Amino acid sequence: MKKVSESTVARLSVYLRLLSERESEGVEMMSSGELAKLAGATAAQVRKDLSAFGTFGKRGLGYPVAELSGVLRSILGLERHWRVALVGAGRIGMALLGYQDFRRQGFPIVSAFDADRTKVGQRRHGVTIRADAEMERALVEEAIEIVIVAVPVEVAQEVVDRVVRSGVRAILNFAPTKIEVPAGVALKNVNMALELEALSYALSAGRRGRRWAAGARA
Amino acid sequence: MKKVSESTVARLSVYLRLLSERESEGVEMMSSGELAKLAGATAAQVRKDLSAFGTFGKRGLGYPVAELSGVLRSILGLERHWRVALVGAGRIGMALLGYQDFRRQGFPIVSAFDADRTKVGQRRHGVTIRADAEMERALVEEAIEIVIVAVPVEVAQEVVDRVVRSGVRAILNFAPTKIEVPAGVALKNVNMALELEALSYALSAGRRGRRWAAGARA
Repeated sequence: MKKVSESTVARLSVYLRLLSERESEGVEMMSSGELAKLAGATAAQVRKDLSAFGTFGKRGLGYPVAELSGVLRSILGLERHWRVALVGAGRIGMALLGYQDFRRQGFPIVSAFDADRTKVGQRRHGVTIRADAEMERALVEEAIEIVIVAVPVEVAQEVVDRVVRSGVRAILNFAPTKIEVPAGVALKNVNMALELEALSYALSAGRRGRRWAAGARA
Repeated sequence: MKKVSESTVARLSVYLRLLSERESEGVEMMSSGELAKLAGATAAQVRKDLSAFGTFGKRGLGYPVAELSGVLRSILGLERHWRVALVGAGRIGMALLGYQDFRRQGFPIVSAFDADRTKVGQRRHGVTIRADAEMERALVEEAIEIVIVAVPVEVAQEVVDRVVRSGVRAILNFAPTKIEVPAGVALKNVNMALELEALSYALSAGRRGRRWAAGARA
């Protein structure tokens, strides 16, 4: 199994999305140039990325849309559904429970846990929130494969450690802090608040810069 | 204005979050060690990050929580609200419109636009969705400072170009594709689908690896 970089995997996801859109429009062939343009890559990069997984398409005709999207779906593990659990049913967690696209994309949230007793027993979008203390056993018994962590920063690492000890090998973290996982466990982070604050910083720094520059000229 | 790296800005956001939590608990001092532990950094890194903005705290006593959080809020531009517009009221866009934390965090979505006529005129959480064609003029007239782009991949770059031409200098992109912006425009990306697919890939590659290894032993 050739090692594939994270940025290559991200581009494969983008290619698949573009191919799927074309497929639904009934298009049969798509050129590396078109894929490149929409993915913000070069045609050479597209050809290099895809050549790692086999020989597709014919020079001048492009890639066969249905075949290539099937191959990418298989490479990315998207031919099946993954069993996903949510830990932390706060504001973000509740929004994620309600986000119907996870199921459509093959990542149905089938279990949810929270440490807040007032939330335990509540049912949201077909999932009943259970007590945090039941988490470890449930992760094992329900063969959960991916855990979404949406707990407060202060307990995030501890929750991730418990999740990892329960045998889960893939974590999507929404807590705005740096999380450590052992080798063999995949971790991805999503943080809207941090991204917005980075934009706020950039806008503020830009204004400070302009004000200072104006002052220097005055 | 000293140039501050993106990773430093992200850590400042994390420190601020931790300080705010402590502040709400009535804690007055917080050590670099405690900040470091919760932020996944070292105490030396915390001291270095914060020393760039002034002299805080006393050796052995730690940082004054209220003062330092005030300073960080100011550095990050969080003492004010930013005017945010949403372009694209699809599944993700609608979820973002409903996500109440943006307003609480100082990023209220005050305008929304969509190219789909059936969505125009719909009101969601106090915001009426308007026609895409009205976007440029509204961005200028309403002095929008940050635009959240949640449109399909194929039109994302075109929408961003129009947003930039309207004078907006900060963009949060949810479209799973690479977006180019000119110098002086800040761009951040959030993509749950890509992160989930990267986890799916990692789990699949791990299985393939184990299966192959088992085959080799057989």
